[in-house]
Amino acid sequence: TTLFDPTEHPHRRYNPLTDQWVLVSPHRAKRPWQGQQEKVNEEQKPTHDPNCYLCPRNKRITGEPNPDYRKPYVFRNDFSALLQDTPAPEENIDPLFRTAPARGESRVICFSPDHSKTLPLLTVDEINEVIKVWQQQLQELGQTYPWVQIFENKGAAMGCSNPHPHGQIWANSFLPNEVAREDINQRKYYQQQGSVLLVDYAKRELEQKERIVVETEHWLALVPYWAVWPFETLLLPKTHVKRLTELSAEQAQDLAIILKKLTTKYDNLFETSFPYSMGFHAAPFNGEDNEHWQLHAHFYPPLLRSATIRKFMVGYEMLGESQRDLTAEQAAARLRELSEVHYQLR
Amino acid sequence: TTLFDPTEHPHRRYNPLTDQWVLVSPHRAKRPWQGQQEKVNEEQKPTHDPNCYLCPRNKRITGEPNPDYRKPYVFRNDFSALLQDTPAPEENIDPLFRTAPARGESRVICFSPDHSKTLPLLTVDEINEVIKVWQQQLQELGQTYPWVQIFENKGAAMGCSNPHPHGQIWANSFLPNEVAREDINQRKYYQQQGSVLLVDYAKRELEQKERIVVETEHWLALVPYWAVWPFETLLLPKTHVKRLTELSAEQAQDLAIILKKLTTKYDNLFETSFPYSMGFHAAPFNGEDNEHWQLHAHFYPPLLRSATIRKFMVGYEMLGESQRDLTAEQAAARLRELSEVHYQLR
Ligand SMILES: O=P(O)(O)O[C@H]1O[C@H](CO)[C@@H](O)[C@H](O)[C@H]1O
Ligand SMILES: O=P(O)(O)O[C@H]1O[C@H](CO)[C@@H](O)[C@H](O)[C@H]1O
Repeated sequence: TTLFDPTEHPHRRYNPLTDQWVLVSPHRAKRPWQGQQEKVNEEQKPTHDPNCYLCPRNKRITGEPNPDYRKPYVFRNDFSALLQDTPAPEENIDPLFRTAPARGESRVICFSPDHSKTLPLLTVDEINEVIKVWQQQLQELGQTYPWVQIFENKGAAMGCSNPHPHGQIWANSFLPNEVAREDINQRKYYQQQGSVLLVDYAKRELEQKERIVVETEHWLALVPYWAVWPFETLLLPKTHVKRLTELSAEQAQDLAIILKKLTTKYDNLFETSFPYSMGFHAAPFNGEDNEHWQLHAHFYPPLLRSATIRKFMVGYEMLGESQRDLTAEQAAARLRELSEVHYQLR
Repeated sequence: TTLFDPTEHPHRRYNPLTDQWVLVSPHRAKRPWQGQQEKVNEEQKPTHDPNCYLCPRNKRITGEPNPDYRKPYVFRNDFSALLQDTPAPEENIDPLFRTAPARGESRVICFSPDHSKTLPLLTVDEINEVIKVWQQQLQELGQTYPWVQIFENKGAAMGCSNPHPHGQIWANSFLPNEVAREDINQRKYYQQQGSVLLVDYAKRELEQKERIVVETEHWLALVPYWAVWPFETLLLPKTHVKRLTELSAEQAQDLAIILKKLTTKYDNLFETSFPYSMGFHAAPFNGEDNEHWQLHAHFYPPLLRSATIRKFMVGYEMLGESQRDLTAEQAAARLRELSEVHYQLR
């Protein structure tokens, strides 16, 4: 009988943050692809695009002009999914037709006035300005809302509807599904082990090394053992930090460094502006003891084999469970060996 | 103060099958779209395509020829995500690095020899043959595996890599995430209410009518109250049936009728071959008392506004929770009013 080899033999891995499994089928990476190909947009973008709704001084879709901003610029999403003032549905405890209120705010953050500069192309100082704004937004919205989701959809493949580099901030009067799950599972671990799940996990990964992609003084980015997307990563501080607002100045500064390194490696992987959705998870502002929470960011990139071939999470994945075609260790090794200098800047 | 209006005001709805919420933001349907557009393939496909790996008599990618099949044809997936005989990993109870064995089989089912005929374009009798094969496959694989996932990825937008109309059958030595969740939640309901969740739900929907899309003698298709995808539907028998293999001859025959009607309406919505992932959930073959299970099929179609504009489940959805831009009732009304005659056959 053959010995089990994770790079050859299908197996399942468990995600302790979400209490879900992933099916790993590494032998499948060899299959040919005749399906959909993504469009690649390699045209060099201008610094200022007169037709862009998000560039400084241009008019937004509402007709309102943007200021001549020089630093990250935040405004209310013109098509907010959440509204501050909205009537609440009647409470419905019918187990088959449950409804709950949802209030909140949706904001957009332009990372820089420069239309052509995605995160990896900004300087560390410029990324630092973005981090400061994220912190201010959390500080402000956290006074009213238990949850503030900071995220970025990068690239058309990830539903980004405007090419000007920007992220979003959605404040919620409730804990969304994913956050509620991470809350429950981190709390359970804390109660059972007396320590913080992701703090313990980071320590173990720093010992094992095989899933680490980049490491800086205060941070590490790794392909989690239970990653679902081909090149998914998890970004973690090395010490216990509950929220972005609780970072020391050095930790915040160093976050800019690791964000630049990680997103540069991503772009270098297929020498393309690498699409992803990313966002931060951290202790909610729900007035509870949140010692079990560790601040982290998830990066969920769809590409699998090239700039044009993505992983589809469809039939089996939607109805059964997520499935991946290479191991976390294989993905980490590929990302780790890439240069930290952006291919466009070489 | 304004009264709550579900077609105007953001709110959340609860999915009792998966114990997850969805954020409904119906006012957002009005926003403009400048993002990715799907490709539409409107060319008429030939009945037999000499370059297709799945057409009768052609060679598959392995070099092996397909038989001259006249009815639905099943073969082992040439790039199976699951293998029958695969070494099991050592049991790992480390809470941060859990691994579990995964064995199984992946098969492909060509719905018909005709390269050009998707489900809605087959006759009811031809769909009946597909249902019979699904039943045989369940019968056979259910003797070895606790779970058999029958599904179809239709269209390039849903990761379908071969245009010949086909579905897949993945047998698993384990209950995948989604099935495990539905198992737990249906059991809980059964214990608390003494009745079957989806049987009760179908009754209530038949009374309320506003979410029903098609109804036949033995089946109904509806947009569930908690639908996530814009035109998601749930297909249910009107009586308690645990598995496809337990359908009466009339119920099976009638399933072919409702499948044809539902998929025809889908194609008619944007007059395009409507992409989706669909699949059946039913009582597992795990030797347990599965009275709490009701057979059903989920249809998850990505399109939102036209043949080329889809809903992206990205940043907020991946990190927070699913969000939709129109209500289930609005989607159901649009589908309900569409013709049951396919636009290509008019
Ligand atoms: O096996 P296929 O049809 O080539 O592959 C398709 O369906 C599978 C099961 O949902 C997915 O894992 C793949 O990402 C998708 O491209
Ligand atoms: O608000 P945007 O960027 O136009 O929209 C994008 O991000 C949202 C939040 O993840 C999604 O709901 C949309 O489907 C996506 O297209």
